Amino acid sequence: MEKIRIGILGYGNLGRGVEMAVDLNDDMELVGVFTRRDPASVKVASDTPVRPVSDLDAGVDDIDVLIICGGSATDLPKLTPAYAGKYNVVDSFDTHANIPQHYAAVNEVATEGAKLALISCGWDPGLFSLNRLFGNCFLPQGNDYTFWGKGISQGHSDAIRRIPGVADAKQYTIPVDAALESVRAGEDPELTTREKHTRECWVVLEEGADPAAVTEAIVTMPNYFDDYDTTVNFISQEELDRDHAAMPHGGFVMRTGSNAAGSRFLIEYQLKLDSNPQFTSMVLVAYARAVARMAAEGQTGARTVFDIAPAYLAPQSAEELRAHFL
Amino acid sequence: MEKIRIGILGYGNLGRGVEMAVDLNDDMELVGVFTRRDPASVKVASDTPVRPVSDLDAGVDDIDVLIICGGSATDLPKLTPAYAGKYNVVDSFDTHANIPQHYAAVNEVATEGAKLALISCGWDPGLFSLNRLFGNCFLPQGNDYTFWGKGISQGHSDAIRRIPGVADAKQYTIPVDAALESVRAGEDPELTTREKHTRECWVVLEEGADPAAVTEAIVTMPNYFDDYDTTVNFISQEELDRDHAAMPHGGFVMRTGSNAAGSRFLIEYQLKLDSNPQFTSMVLVAYARAVARMAAEGQTGARTVFDIAPAYLAPQSAEELRAHFL
Repeated sequence: MEKIRIGILGYGNLGRGVEMAVDLNDDMELVGVFTRRDPASVKVASDTPVRPVSDLDAGVDDIDVLIICGGSATDLPKLTPAYAGKYNVVDSFDTHANIPQHYAAVNEVATEGAKLALISCGWDPGLFSLNRLFGNCFLPQGNDYTFWGKGISQGHSDAIRRIPGVADAKQYTIPVDAALESVRAGEDPELTTREKHTRECWVVLEEGADPAAVTEAIVTMPNYFDDYDTTVNFISQEELDRDHAAMPHGGFVMRTGSNAAGSRFLIEYQLKLDSNPQFTSMVLVAYARAVARMAAEGQTGARTVFDIAPAYLAPQSAEELRAHFL
Repeated sequence: MEKIRIGILGYGNLGRGVEMAVDLNDDMELVGVFTRRDPASVKVASDTPVRPVSDLDAGVDDIDVLIICGGSATDLPKLTPAYAGKYNVVDSFDTHANIPQHYAAVNEVATEGAKLALISCGWDPGLFSLNRLFGNCFLPQGNDYTFWGKGISQGHSDAIRRIPGVADAKQYTIPVDAALESVRAGEDPELTTREKHTRECWVVLEEGADPAAVTEAIVTMPNYFDDYDTTVNFISQEELDRDHAAMPHGGFVMRTGSNAAGSRFLIEYQLKLDSNPQFTSMVLVAYARAVARMAAEGQTGARTVFDIAPAYLAPQSAEELRAHFL
């Protein structure tokens, strides 16, 4: 069988993760990393060629699926519609509120170009979305709970770094154990923002900065921190680099339900990830397999994880799946 | 929108559960319970008519999906192929080793009759299967763990009841906490049968029976108990009926994985169910919605949960799903 040929657009944490993930899947090969930087300046881990993004514009005919590895704030709203008309694509667009708009934009160009595009793939949106959907379908009468962490929140870390006097910072989002246990115990809690997660900050001060003022600026920051119980720890840059360089994340999707007989049911899905971008990449790569297959069947337009039958994700045949996984 | 019309074949625990589950789904209605018994002898909970199974043979034209609620040992291998040519059907065939054979038999008649048939639906096979598949796709390099319980094993309870001197019995399968914790801790344990589950038996003796002999017969029973640490408790029939009448079940599907960067990942899926048949029924009913829709698109033949795109399970439109669940 011919291998599925994967292109990577963008070589940050996510692109590096995709490169590693493709290597774990024997039915795939990497045809290139496409970059907006000077290709000569980009050192990749594998022997795949680094090519200028202009090659993509010119048209590259050996790509089955292009995985677009960019940020949701500014990159993906431009990049995915820009390339979904020429290539089958997968992206990890994760700004929940803007998904309908992104879907519409990508669907239009992909349909016109007769290509297939999967948007908002990864674990949230992505696997957590699937579990929210499944939970609601199987337990129509019930409650939903999503908890994130323990993990680094990039947005909250950035917010701290913008405070005057802060040289560097990392912020962990941590689910509150008592809330998890209450859900599991079938108590159907109505949880406030503060009751669901705590925020733990590790901050490097600039020389002469006032720790009390920085702490105050963090814990009172609207939306980001004021609704949470937040702890602020000051450490050296060396300690931050040594102890907080990783990007762990994860979380829980729970659905509790009941029926007319008074029976109670709990569905709990948990992820515990040493590296958020590396796991996201592994999910993107499995879904790229699905996109390659569905595109080969002639499917076009935009899709989400909700539209992908699970069998498309697996390298095994339908017979093998029934015999070994069912 | 017209409601999806559900028929139930067989009115045991599963059939009763389907009846309850349909009531929780506003887009569905029950058109009848079909029974092999005398219909007059079957009292149902709702106002749905009870009809003889011969009506099904004659042909009932108002059924969108027939949910076949029978046992896997003898009922489903006959019933599903018998009706999959005339009706779109869903069954919960759960004898893992015989799934390929059952699939082939059902696929043949469903294809010939131009109907759609979903086999082996429920939570295991079913939701656990999906999570085994997903785990292997996202973490190609890793280990699988499935634990069952705490829950009643019907097969093991039956095996105890066949021992001379036993009047009645219930057996709980219980996952070993230390094993779960070892998996979660990333220790990649290789677990023996004994290390994964314990078995807890609640036994009512016939008058004059020897408890020591019964205990010995249980704990040394090949396949069922001899590979496990088994505890045997003797109680009265009254106590058994009072404390062990429910059919709780559940379990865990875990996948641990790693990558070339040395990062580790854990995906854990857990079900905790007050009633095994009632939850299975809720899953069957959600998948019946998918079958009704896919059949309306003209799809025919046999399917498993691996072949069903998640969006088909939900009553909401694709737009609503993207806006609210993704």
